[in-house]
Amino acid sequence: MSSAEPVVRTKQTEKEVNGISTQVVCTEFSNYIFIVLTQYGKMGTLISVTPDSRSNDISTPTLSTKVLLGKDEPLTHVCAKNLATSVSQEAGNRPVLLGLSLKDSSIDAITQMKEIINSCKVW
Amino acid sequence: MSSAEPVVRTKQTEKEVNGISTQVVCTEFSNYIFIVLTQYGKMGTLISVTPDSRSNDISTPTLSTKVLLGKDEPLTHVCAKNLATSVSQEAGNRPVLLGLSLKDSSIDAITQMKEIINSCKVW
Repeated sequence: MSSAEPVVRTKQTEKEVNGISTQVVCTEFSNYIFIVLTQYGKMGTLISVTPDSRSNDISTPTLSTKVLLGKDEPLTHVCAKNLATSVSQEAGNRPVLLGLSLKDSSIDAITQMKEIINSCKVW
Repeated sequence: MSSAEPVVRTKQTEKEVNGISTQVVCTEFSNYIFIVLTQYGKMGTLISVTPDSRSNDISTPTLSTKVLLGKDEPLTHVCAKNLATSVSQEAGNRPVLLGLSLKDSSIDAITQMKEIINSCKVW
């Protein structure tokens, strides 16, 4: 039964974003991409970002976000969607589980964080 | 602002449990321990295991389990509590976030998995 050899891949890095130390951990599962972005060392708010299966094949699927753990704030959904959209698409429309613990949620910071996530590509 | 130096530590291993390839990923956050146990390569059911803060200082805190993602079955709660209790205690009563995707949930298998988790101690 062990011939299928499931592999869980993890990549991790630490970079400065606008002077703030930012850690990223990316883990690939067959049915999910798990990404933690932390500037506090905490796991932070846990958000699932799921492609909408009802959209037709041709168009890019829309994403729905849901806070599983932590404060449910509008900005969290915006950041999560912004950070996870390209990851989900590149990973064959897999859902993304995000842990966000950010001091700086500015557009500029989020843009830099997307690049850091890209440097930890496991999908 | 980067002097506090938050560190996210990850350890990962793969072992056979009763002939089934089993992967474990343990990640330490300041406010959570994240553990994935997978025999399918999937992230699986996501369960938070939280020490009950109402219990008094002297006694061992009781743990409450909550399924955040996936099927909510009684066996899942039993396995989660069994796997996470000693981790939570050893980590200073931190809550544990568990991802479980198991082919074999027998007591024997769970006991072996606890040993594997112990070999990936990040707390």
